[in-house]
Amino acid sequence: MPEKILIVVCDGLGDRPVKGLGNKTPLQSAARPSLNHFATKGVCGIIDVIAPGVRPGSDTAHLALFGHDPFKVYTGRGPFEAMGVGMVVRPGDVAFRCNFSTVSPDMTIVDRRAGRIREGTADLAKTLDNWEFEGVKVYFKEGTEHRGVLLLRATGLSPLVTDADPHQEGVRPHDCEPKVPEAALTARVVNAFVKRSYELLRGHPVNKARVKSGERPANIVLPRGAGIMPHIPTFQERFGLKAAAIAGVALVKGICRVSGMDIIEVKGATGGLNTDMEAKARAANRALETYDLVFVNIKAADLCGHDGDPKGKAAVVRRLDKAMAVVRKGLPPGAFFALTADHSTPCCVKDHTGDPVPLVVYGEGVRADSVRTFDEIACAEGGLGRLRGVDLLPILMDLSGRAEKFGA
Amino acid sequence: MPEKILIVVCDGLGDRPVKGLGNKTPLQSAARPSLNHFATKGVCGIIDVIAPGVRPGSDTAHLALFGHDPFKVYTGRGPFEAMGVGMVVRPGDVAFRCNFSTVSPDMTIVDRRAGRIREGTADLAKTLDNWEFEGVKVYFKEGTEHRGVLLLRATGLSPLVTDADPHQEGVRPHDCEPKVPEAALTARVVNAFVKRSYELLRGHPVNKARVKSGERPANIVLPRGAGIMPHIPTFQERFGLKAAAIAGVALVKGICRVSGMDIIEVKGATGGLNTDMEAKARAANRALETYDLVFVNIKAADLCGHDGDPKGKAAVVRRLDKAMAVVRKGLPPGAFFALTADHSTPCCVKDHTGDPVPLVVYGEGVRADSVRTFDEIACAEGGLGRLRGVDLLPILMDLSGRAEKFGA
Repeated sequence: MPEKILIVVCDGLGDRPVKGLGNKTPLQSAARPSLNHFATKGVCGIIDVIAPGVRPGSDTAHLALFGHDPFKVYTGRGPFEAMGVGMVVRPGDVAFRCNFSTVSPDMTIVDRRAGRIREGTADLAKTLDNWEFEGVKVYFKEGTEHRGVLLLRATGLSPLVTDADPHQEGVRPHDCEPKVPEAALTARVVNAFVKRSYELLRGHPVNKARVKSGERPANIVLPRGAGIMPHIPTFQERFGLKAAAIAGVALVKGICRVSGMDIIEVKGATGGLNTDMEAKARAANRALETYDLVFVNIKAADLCGHDGDPKGKAAVVRRLDKAMAVVRKGLPPGAFFALTADHSTPCCVKDHTGDPVPLVVYGEGVRADSVRTFDEIACAEGGLGRLRGVDLLPILMDLSGRAEKFGA
Repeated sequence: MPEKILIVVCDGLGDRPVKGLGNKTPLQSAARPSLNHFATKGVCGIIDVIAPGVRPGSDTAHLALFGHDPFKVYTGRGPFEAMGVGMVVRPGDVAFRCNFSTVSPDMTIVDRRAGRIREGTADLAKTLDNWEFEGVKVYFKEGTEHRGVLLLRATGLSPLVTDADPHQEGVRPHDCEPKVPEAALTARVVNAFVKRSYELLRGHPVNKARVKSGERPANIVLPRGAGIMPHIPTFQERFGLKAAAIAGVALVKGICRVSGMDIIEVKGATGGLNTDMEAKARAANRALETYDLVFVNIKAADLCGHDGDPKGKAAVVRRLDKAMAVVRKGLPPGAFFALTADHSTPCCVKDHTGDPVPLVVYGEGVRADSVRTFDEIACAEGGLGRLRGVDLLPILMDLSGRAEKFGA
């Protein structure tokens, strides 16, 4: 009988030694009895989530940790941007990154970012969302500031089209052109969408108000960077297992969804700094009663990394440790537990880096090594050595009794 | 002058900590002064024989340890099944896994496994073996119970044919159909073989006796799972070296043979639990006088793993250690010696798992590390780190002075 699996990913947990913390990483500097318990009883290692020195995005990192080769399945940012703004993306959908831009009446682009508009984009987006053209469903959603996502859904779409966004100002928007004959429909829809965006947005109340207050109107949407959502085999298809995810961040949720995981919403789990980690831990333990594999993403450490706040990050680790105490108490007998990060977000860099992340795998029969603390440096001496992100899931499938033999 | 090489693979040696052995693996729990001597003087590591978490078969594992990418050269089980029953397989041969089955007079399959026949299959097989049809040599050999292997030899064969075995009962055998025009000859031979198997087997004395005693006759053979034997470059072709193998198990012998190794038969080396390991060690030392590379497979630990017998496995390790004392004594000056396993067979799982296996490489000039004991956990801290199976041979070729420079 295969065993249950819990994977906790502490987003951006990895860091570098910080002078202000006595040359320790935020993780090393925090009291973390539960994390250290897992390290002591489990087997540790470090992971290059993509490959050594490659800076992972949250999207590529989670694809890799779910066992997909990101170099194969990451087919352009469009579909992942769509997931990032909370759109549900299906295989075959073609998505574009977009800017709200400003054009003059003669259709010259005056500002590619519409005065870096911050407010009212949700209203503008609603006007453009949920349209249909030549049998293609057209969805549009705003992102942060001047950004948005265009999503096309139909059979027979192609991402092989040129950008409508000319990537410069003082010129007219480009016609979206098919690069192959099969992309003609996709290009027609994009051009119709751009035209329609101008027609519906130029007189929109949000833009009238902007013009009145001397701001540039967001009177057109310019798509670029088409990408098609590949078919990503689900956990059910690959391993016959039922999987659920607990995550606050839209992009991570989206990747979990396309990987075939049910999304469990947890009250107080915000994806922000104030997220209720212990509520997530309790929800994970509960989910393990009905699911074979449960995945939890906890975002808070990453936010402190981006803010360059090592003390805040250490405080997050202390809270994380308490949540892991809850996990430890409620883990079903025989279950395997893996704790790692999707990437490092060193406070000194304030962004994702390619530094490897620590990993512990805990459960009956693992080859416990001599590592006694869970951190970036101790784990590098562990029995798992240095792995890639895509290796994690096969290892867990093997330990939990789900791997197929290759050969006889 | 390149140095000699000895590789000893302890089949299935890797394990997991066992509660009844004080949370040690069978390997850790056994007295093993010779193994520990090699670990102390040598450089250690762990190997993912195929890849992390991938459960190797004995066939794919040995291909990898001989430096072949199993994902490229493992082209279906047929040819390896053939080797497993002791058939000599050559590049271009197409082989099928087969069942002895029972059909009724109207050719409906009554039992795909012929009452799980155990006795008499060698006699039945002999009737079908060594035939020729349209210039194709046809060989057939029995396997365990109702299993057998069909091997076709000619130029111009193709494995791209459908199964004659319909994989269900209550229906007639399928015609074997070519999936591509070039496979037409292969399909014709398979269909002729199936027809002939019914003609020759239905009245065979073994089947007459079975019917008399109320058992189902093995009156037809149904091939499936065609595979072609790829050209595997030999040790001679790759490195210009003369290699020999000492192994008791037919499948391993077969892979050694296709890799261009001479097979040395050793009296008392059975491939079973009672195999004379010290005789194998003495034979290996002797073979090193005339061969550049000698490979030894010792099966016993794997058998205890499959039986779930950790104490038996520890006892095997103690015997293995004595054999390695013989190796140590007789190793030619300057020779390099590698000791590892083809996969783990943890007693708690009773089958191959993806857990990595320990490795030691010993010889003049290796970078001896701080590892003092040869086991799964200590070796993970060794100077070789975590390798793949395909890495072993290039490392030994380099150490022994046979590797070509890549670049100038």
